[in-house]
Amino acid sequence: MIMTENTVEISAKINSKITQVRVTPILIADPPLLNIQGVHAPYAPRAIIEVETDTGEIGVGETYGDTDYLSVAQAFAPELVGSPLSVNGLRGRVRARTESVELQRVDAAVDAGGLRGPRSLNKIACSVASAFEVAIYDALGHLAGLPVHALLGGKVRDDVDFSAYLFYRWAEHPDGYGSDVPHDDWGAALDPDQVVQQARRMVRDYGFTSFKLKGGVFPPDQEVAATKALAEAFPGRPVRLDPNGAWSVATSLRVAAELESIAEYLEDPTTGTAQMAEVARGTSLPLATNMCVTSTEEISEAFRTDAVQVVLSDHHYWGGLRATQDLAAICDAFDVGLSMHSNTHLGISLAAMTQVASTIPTLRYACDTHRPWQTEDVITTPHVFADGKLPVTGTPGLGIELDRDSLQRLHQRWAGSPIRDRDDGVAMRRVHPEWTQPSW
Amino acid sequence: MIMTENTVEISAKINSKITQVRVTPILIADPPLLNIQGVHAPYAPRAIIEVETDTGEIGVGETYGDTDYLSVAQAFAPELVGSPLSVNGLRGRVRARTESVELQRVDAAVDAGGLRGPRSLNKIACSVASAFEVAIYDALGHLAGLPVHALLGGKVRDDVDFSAYLFYRWAEHPDGYGSDVPHDDWGAALDPDQVVQQARRMVRDYGFTSFKLKGGVFPPDQEVAATKALAEAFPGRPVRLDPNGAWSVATSLRVAAELESIAEYLEDPTTGTAQMAEVARGTSLPLATNMCVTSTEEISEAFRTDAVQVVLSDHHYWGGLRATQDLAAICDAFDVGLSMHSNTHLGISLAAMTQVASTIPTLRYACDTHRPWQTEDVITTPHVFADGKLPVTGTPGLGIELDRDSLQRLHQRWAGSPIRDRDDGVAMRRVHPEWTQPSW
Repeated sequence: MIMTENTVEISAKINSKITQVRVTPILIADPPLLNIQGVHAPYAPRAIIEVETDTGEIGVGETYGDTDYLSVAQAFAPELVGSPLSVNGLRGRVRARTESVELQRVDAAVDAGGLRGPRSLNKIACSVASAFEVAIYDALGHLAGLPVHALLGGKVRDDVDFSAYLFYRWAEHPDGYGSDVPHDDWGAALDPDQVVQQARRMVRDYGFTSFKLKGGVFPPDQEVAATKALAEAFPGRPVRLDPNGAWSVATSLRVAAELESIAEYLEDPTTGTAQMAEVARGTSLPLATNMCVTSTEEISEAFRTDAVQVVLSDHHYWGGLRATQDLAAICDAFDVGLSMHSNTHLGISLAAMTQVASTIPTLRYACDTHRPWQTEDVITTPHVFADGKLPVTGTPGLGIELDRDSLQRLHQRWAGSPIRDRDDGVAMRRVHPEWTQPSW
Repeated sequence: MIMTENTVEISAKINSKITQVRVTPILIADPPLLNIQGVHAPYAPRAIIEVETDTGEIGVGETYGDTDYLSVAQAFAPELVGSPLSVNGLRGRVRARTESVELQRVDAAVDAGGLRGPRSLNKIACSVASAFEVAIYDALGHLAGLPVHALLGGKVRDDVDFSAYLFYRWAEHPDGYGSDVPHDDWGAALDPDQVVQQARRMVRDYGFTSFKLKGGVFPPDQEVAATKALAEAFPGRPVRLDPNGAWSVATSLRVAAELESIAEYLEDPTTGTAQMAEVARGTSLPLATNMCVTSTEEISEAFRTDAVQVVLSDHHYWGGLRATQDLAAICDAFDVGLSMHSNTHLGISLAAMTQVASTIPTLRYACDTHRPWQTEDVITTPHVFADGKLPVTGTPGLGIELDRDSLQRLHQRWAGSPIRDRDDGVAMRRVHPEWTQPSW
């Protein structure tokens, strides 16, 4: 039974080692989307990871490109050379390497690249590890002749459902960014009517059947009105609101009461596990989070206190695809629902999200994705949503091909730019110098 | 990047389907080991699973062969034909199939094949699913040219540490079983001296450096004396005692106090999560369990009440290798330790245990194994312990080869025997008709 294949070939596969690792920082165009932290600047940093093996396989991954993430990724990359295509223990290895990197912003209250509660070395390490893990899985898939989902135990669905990620936004980036500032034709969305218009276009172009509105921008009543407008415009379709912790417990309870029969769930109405638990005790509306439970060490308190009913997974947060499956198992054991968070990302991460989402039986919500907001990509054939879904590819690895011309072009943009970190607050204060993060 | 391998071969791999599934019940020789349920009878049923694919790969798995498990396995087997080599969702599929099988002993207070708390359809389904899952992983490993550990994300250690599993036992099975009753030369172990002698032989022959004594046989003071004798005979070596829930809370607390500075952990001193929690509150000795936490639905209460400090994983209990990794992740999130339980098993399961154990960074205890007590096997090259460890094989799949002659011989034994279920109590009552399960 052992000798059914060519022994030399088998030996080469089993003993395959990583021979090269490349970390390529890029800047990608981003529209002026609004959130509690400010506004997206015209360009956002990402880091593209490639691992190459002695058998000639190449795997790709993608994560935050902000300075601290990039520094850790660059410091860790050489350590992978000589390693097998193995992902267990990777987070621990990156975490150990993180100790030797001088980080700039680790004490920031929130993460520059997203909104995931207090920063920590472990969270940075997990985000960096996630990209290496995805790249290793992609390479292993090519080596084994199997799609990534098969390496994760196999898909349980043939397509993955995504939600329309609606944002309050400006029509254009403000002046002062230079002549080549990116532009799109979505127009402004600053009131319920414009939000519904944005949703209609998302439905028309992508077929989404669930909606998520990024809130925390306007006073709660305006955002409740927009949520209700969505529910009226798309009766029976799931709608979510996510103010990124903008509200007090009292405000959260008031909004929850208003949305109890309307929203699918309410995301991070307030910050911190204790406050979330207080809100949860006062409403029947499920509370979801990608802020108070974003790493393993935050799970126990939140689950013991029933602070959240849905956790938004994110393989960039949790340390990769296996870690996402781990999170699913933990949530399942505690009867906590699972959904999927998104931050600004390209097609590599979308492929990874789709592959892992296809393997999780308990993932019963449409996943978030920023993809419709990104006008650029680093893969040759960007994903096409149909009926709000993406098919789960069955070709080896992630089922994507790196577009080296695009990668080079976006890297050149990074090399020629002073932008190194995403900072939505700085971007907002270019327009409103006195702006501070709101709370209600 | 997608087309680096032969497209036809890749397509065959990705689209590989299961074409045949075989379930072979066998009876294996077992020595007269004592436990709270009675004594092991001369033969124990096991079920050997084979899955065969259209690409010619064969994978093997092993689980309980008792009637209910066998019935579910036989009912489910045809359903796998035509399926891809996918394991996600398998437990759910087996669970659904379980509904249509008439089970005989599901209401038994404890499991005939082991000691895992109250029986449930879900537990039976998980145990059956585990064997199919292992067989699928073995076949997928052959197909992909990768060891099972690589399909589980890769090993984090090159060998796996096992403990010497010590049993009170009789020298021989009692009369009345017929002329071909199995025999070994271990002799009786009924007092501390004999237990230490048994341990010395285990150390000599296998190199084990940790010890586990199966208790629940004699009054607690005798078992404490044996545990202390082991600690004295092997200073500095971890020692565990497992009375399988034989004791009251008061007795458990008294024993725990005696063993606090001696034992590595105390396994299931008492039954049920509530009583375990009560004991846990009264001792600093870690409590381990493979009785009150043996399936996903039992985790939440136990972890919320801090009832256990170590969970003994068992891929036969939890539904397979991925489920074992899931359990590891859940334990890690709640700061609960992970060890590994064993029930009577052969080399297929030992290979699977070793592969999965090698992938779990947080598995920091030596694993249990009954293997030294089994004189028969169904693989061509039985495992050899060195320094109490097994190497993690790097050949495709589980790294074992089915011994079809042995399989056939043990199956013929089953076919010619009336034995269909393990029942240690019945075996004990052949000798002591008035015997009932003890409690102290």
